[in-house]
Amino acid sequence: MSRVYVFLADGFEEIEGLCAVDLLRRAGCDVITVSIMGRREITGSHRIKVEADALFEEIDRKADMLVLPGGMPGTNYLKSHAGLAEYLNEQYGQQGYIAAICAAPSVFEGLGFLEGRKATSYPGCLGENVGCYLEEPVVTDGHVTTSRGVGTAIPFALRLIEILKGKDKAEEIASSIIYD
Amino acid sequence: MSRVYVFLADGFEEIEGLCAVDLLRRAGCDVITVSIMGRREITGSHRIKVEADALFEEIDRKADMLVLPGGMPGTNYLKSHAGLAEYLNEQYGQQGYIAAICAAPSVFEGLGFLEGRKATSYPGCLGENVGCYLEEPVVTDGHVTTSRGVGTAIPFALRLIEILKGKDKAEEIASSIIYD
Repeated sequence: MSRVYVFLADGFEEIEGLCAVDLLRRAGCDVITVSIMGRREITGSHRIKVEADALFEEIDRKADMLVLPGGMPGTNYLKSHAGLAEYLNEQYGQQGYIAAICAAPSVFEGLGFLEGRKATSYPGCLGENVGCYLEEPVVTDGHVTTSRGVGTAIPFALRLIEILKGKDKAEEIASSIIYD
Repeated sequence: MSRVYVFLADGFEEIEGLCAVDLLRRAGCDVITVSIMGRREITGSHRIKVEADALFEEIDRKADMLVLPGGMPGTNYLKSHAGLAEYLNEQYGQQGYIAAICAAPSVFEGLGFLEGRKATSYPGCLGENVGCYLEEPVVTDGHVTTSRGVGTAIPFALRLIEILKGKDKAEEIASSIIYD
């Protein structure tokens, strides 16, 4: 079973994070929401309170995919967490799958993952250290997937399903949720 | 400020419920998530745990719009809650806005709200007591809005914004979340 960690911090964008959790679980992935705040209770950027499945300190760092939702100040917390940066570097170095949406691709840019690579983000969230910025809903370049915002949260989650479970499973989930 | 209650029960579909909360809050509505379980902690149909803002027993029953997410067994809990049925009847009788998505339009059907009315739902969730079943992402007939599933959660939420805040605000929010 594919394991996916979705990292949560206060001020994360709820739909960007939880849509990936929801759809990847529908597809049969072992999705674990991981708090980087040192407590399970997390308040999103639109004041929705959720309880994470695990703390960052508790996970065994063995996942097939790492997912970063956007939102503010959530993205800033992701960016400034030294343990997460170390884990992302490890995963990236092993060609492991990583994915980020909205403002969160800036975390990847800060770690140098987007140099020479195609990527997207919420408008204005990426700077100079990107190979090629595309205004597409979802961009996958090698093992790195990026996306743009709440409005692209479903195609982002479906792309992650396609990567882990194949195109047929992604199409099956799209159809089952009445998504064109 | 428009007040909106979004009713939550164990087994509610997380994205269907929370997308409405997120986007309506972005549009400046006073959105309150209301647990009908007698406790604030709610576990959705995809094992996402959220904390509701209020208990059903605490609300003053003065809202501009009542929203029911789908999901199972969440929809069954909504259907069997006598206090909610009474409140929905009150709201409906006063021509107040009500909205439901996925399996939840069946709650409206059970209360007779869809007789002679256009409506939609997740496939197979509505029976004979509907005026006209449409396979459209979102259907608004008078003060009653229905929609189909997670894949239509964004257009559903945008329609609710249009109803409460106008078409310009709905378009502004759609654009700000990068939704075409």
